[in-house]
Amino acid sequence: MKHILSVKQFEDISLLKRLFIAADKLQATPACKYPQTLSGRTIATIFYEPSTRTRLSFEAAVQNLGGHIISSENAGEFSSAAKGEILEDTTRAINAFADGIIIRHPEPGSAERAAAVSKIPIINAGDGAHEHPTQALLDIYSIYREKGSLNKLKVGLVGDLLYGRTVHSLIPLLALYKAKFYLISPKNLTLPKTITAELHKKGIHYHEMSSWNNALKEVDVLYMTRVQRERFKNVEDYMKVKDNFILTLKDVQTMKPKAIILHPLPRVNEIAQDVDNDPRARYFAQVRNGLFMRMALLQSLYAKL
Amino acid sequence: MKHILSVKQFEDISLLKRLFIAADKLQATPACKYPQTLSGRTIATIFYEPSTRTRLSFEAAVQNLGGHIISSENAGEFSSAAKGEILEDTTRAINAFADGIIIRHPEPGSAERAAAVSKIPIINAGDGAHEHPTQALLDIYSIYREKGSLNKLKVGLVGDLLYGRTVHSLIPLLALYKAKFYLISPKNLTLPKTITAELHKKGIHYHEMSSWNNALKEVDVLYMTRVQRERFKNVEDYMKVKDNFILTLKDVQTMKPKAIILHPLPRVNEIAQDVDNDPRARYFAQVRNGLFMRMALLQSLYAKL
Amino acid sequence: MKHILSVKQFEDISLLKRLFIAADKLQATPACKYPQTLSGRTIATIFYEPSTRTRLSFEAAVQNLGGHIISSENAGEFSSAAKGEILEDTTRAINAFADGIIIRHPEPGSAERAAAVSKIPIINAGDGAHEHPTQALLDIYSIYREKGSLNKLKVGLVGDLLYGRTVHSLIPLLALYKAKFYLISPKNLTLPKTITAELHKKGIHYHEMSSWNNALKEVDVLYMTRVQRERFKNVEDYMKVKDNFILTLKDVQTMKPKAIILHPLPRVNEIAQDVDNDPRARYFAQVRNGLFMRMALLQSLYAKL
Repeated sequence: MKHILSVKQFEDISLLKRLFIAADKLQATPACKYPQTLSGRTIATIFYEPSTRTRLSFEAAVQNLGGHIISSENAGEFSSAAKGEILEDTTRAINAFADGIIIRHPEPGSAERAAAVSKIPIINAGDGAHEHPTQALLDIYSIYREKGSLNKLKVGLVGDLLYGRTVHSLIPLLALYKAKFYLISPKNLTLPKTITAELHKKGIHYHEMSSWNNALKEVDVLYMTRVQRERFKNVEDYMKVKDNFILTLKDVQTMKPKAIILHPLPRVNEIAQDVDNDPRARYFAQVRNGLFMRMALLQSLYAKL
Repeated sequence: MKHILSVKQFEDISLLKRLFIAADKLQATPACKYPQTLSGRTIATIFYEPSTRTRLSFEAAVQNLGGHIISSENAGEFSSAAKGEILEDTTRAINAFADGIIIRHPEPGSAERAAAVSKIPIINAGDGAHEHPTQALLDIYSIYREKGSLNKLKVGLVGDLLYGRTVHSLIPLLALYKAKFYLISPKNLTLPKTITAELHKKGIHYHEMSSWNNALKEVDVLYMTRVQRERFKNVEDYMKVKDNFILTLKDVQTMKPKAIILHPLPRVNEIAQDVDNDPRARYFAQVRNGLFMRMALLQSLYAKL
Repeated sequence: MKHILSVKQFEDISLLKRLFIAADKLQATPACKYPQTLSGRTIATIFYEPSTRTRLSFEAAVQNLGGHIISSENAGEFSSAAKGEILEDTTRAINAFADGIIIRHPEPGSAERAAAVSKIPIINAGDGAHEHPTQALLDIYSIYREKGSLNKLKVGLVGDLLYGRTVHSLIPLLALYKAKFYLISPKNLTLPKTITAELHKKGIHYHEMSSWNNALKEVDVLYMTRVQRERFKNVEDYMKVKDNFILTLKDVQTMKPKAIILHPLPRVNEIAQDVDNDPRARYFAQVRNGLFMRMALLQSLYAKL
């Protein structure tokens, strides 16, 4: 593996297994004993869009492994891009003094364009609505770690399934393990037909539903995302459905005791705050799992797993 | 001590003494011998408001002690906060990959809100007009270090005493050592009555005055702050008093030879630049003392003093 | 050498030679063996203007030599400067917690003003249209390294020679080695008379020309810069000349096989992208040479060459 650009690179059970084991091993290692895989190496985090959580998580991961960070928090405004430089030139220039680039850019395909001219690894930390592979990997790693296994899980995916990038990336990974999907969304925000067609072809079970009433008690995993008011043509349509997609403690109490609730964060109001103390709420553990998955991915690029 | 949120935590002579000794010891240590208390630890500096001096001073302190820095220079604009995430969620997320958070936020009480949900230490680097405890601690450490003792000092506090956060925090600390205060301010910017009432109750002497004419030759410490024109309803009122609060070399020459002049910085024009070369001008030494006080505070959180 | 402020400090063949040797030596050293000259030292990068490439290159250089970085990506907006602090005070304050300042500031002479009050080294990373000495040094080092020698080279300088800061800095350095100059620019953007007069005085050959037709096949080095449309009073004047200053692969094929093409970057469209694969295109190697020249300069400030 030379770059991390797309979740498609990871649709491979044995590769995922190796990553999970590496992340678990790092999670069991005291900080002072982390492998110094990136010792003497410089990693650039180039963010053309704000994403503090993702950037800081990567920067912690790099430094945990002994690497140096050089960073642009707001590359769009402060970099040569503002002077009209193309991304390929920026990439070639950073190749001259860094050993890797973690890039966030609003344009779909930007990470691939960077990788096409780069001799050092490019890690896609989100290219617009296109891909955010490390998020999908930390999501599936969180399910693996929190549930103990991935086989044949019943997974409820909730919210904006039409535009939700994280959901689109997660589904093909879970499909490898024969998940059964509950696709819970407002009618105007259902999963794109291309994705359901793919599930059908693979023989994966899925139910499309506009309310979670019949799903909550069934699922092993509830993956929440936000439904944005802006996606609706009129406010009334939004008001009619919105309560179906705000998770309260009362809802959670109908779920299996061992079910888990995940969310890519940031959350606005789609999970009530008193849910946080329920043991099924694992979205902050999910962030921590992300640190170790990112460390494992860096190891996979610069050493061996 | 789990967090550093308020100067009230430090109204304790024996704790202050331990911090002063620790800071003095660090100041006498060559850089290559600093204790590596934060080795293997990641500290996040999350600044929702610009404050380069405070942020960089903390980041130098953390790295001097062997820690890694992950940083957001402009978290308000670039972070998940912009997407509507509440501070508590941001804090919980950073808990997942860092060992401490140094936070600057415009809202009073924000640092306490972060601490209420945080398992890792929160350091308040300024929460609006409310508290900036490390500034107060570096101020009193500077007086201790520059004067050799804190007992019964005559301290002139100059400028905007009504809104001046640094002054409000410094007064109760100096009161522990029976300071005598000269409270020098325009009549519309006098110290809040709640603070003078507290001094009265403790039997601490203070004089309120609208000019420093009778105070300059008396004081051991002159703590300058800025009087902002915007605080006055009309320009004439400001013009009438402003020269009372701009310190010139001529003024300084009436002070005791061993007196010291401090200022929390940035200075705009309230101290004439030719004062800088007078040995009584100690406001840049004060910044350096701040580095060592911050290192001592970090040690108090992550090790023992 | 205490500070790096101006290319004039480097108009000395023996000093340049020492820097080239130091940079070459670093370039031949594996990353894990870089001298840890800055170990235990903190270097501040304070950028009042965006310049991601320059800042990140310096930050990589500092960390390669074992130093810590504290950084402000957008000091103009986020620092005390926004509150009215003068640069001298900012410099004095940073002196209190850092061991060096790398500064980019829009005002000519700003780096010298900072140096005048600084006990720690100031490195000028660009002060407006005035100086950017490390760019000139990496340019001449690139010519030295790519050509093997600097003696009596034929150097074509192309583009906006009137305002082009990099060109103005490079010419006196190359003049030390008896270069012969082809000054290729639109008629309204010729090199300032003060510089040509200086060349004349030193007995250095130069040709001013408004097209490179007769120069391309002659030069050993082609140093490209951008011609900005905004420099022309009317678009027609610009349209008439612009193709003379956009380098295509066809142009490159008329050049000597061992000639090299440099550019300070960012490039917008003044070099066609298919030129990049020609072995004469050395502008990305130039960026890499910059890393090592900056490391050599830091060594010259904090150790010996």
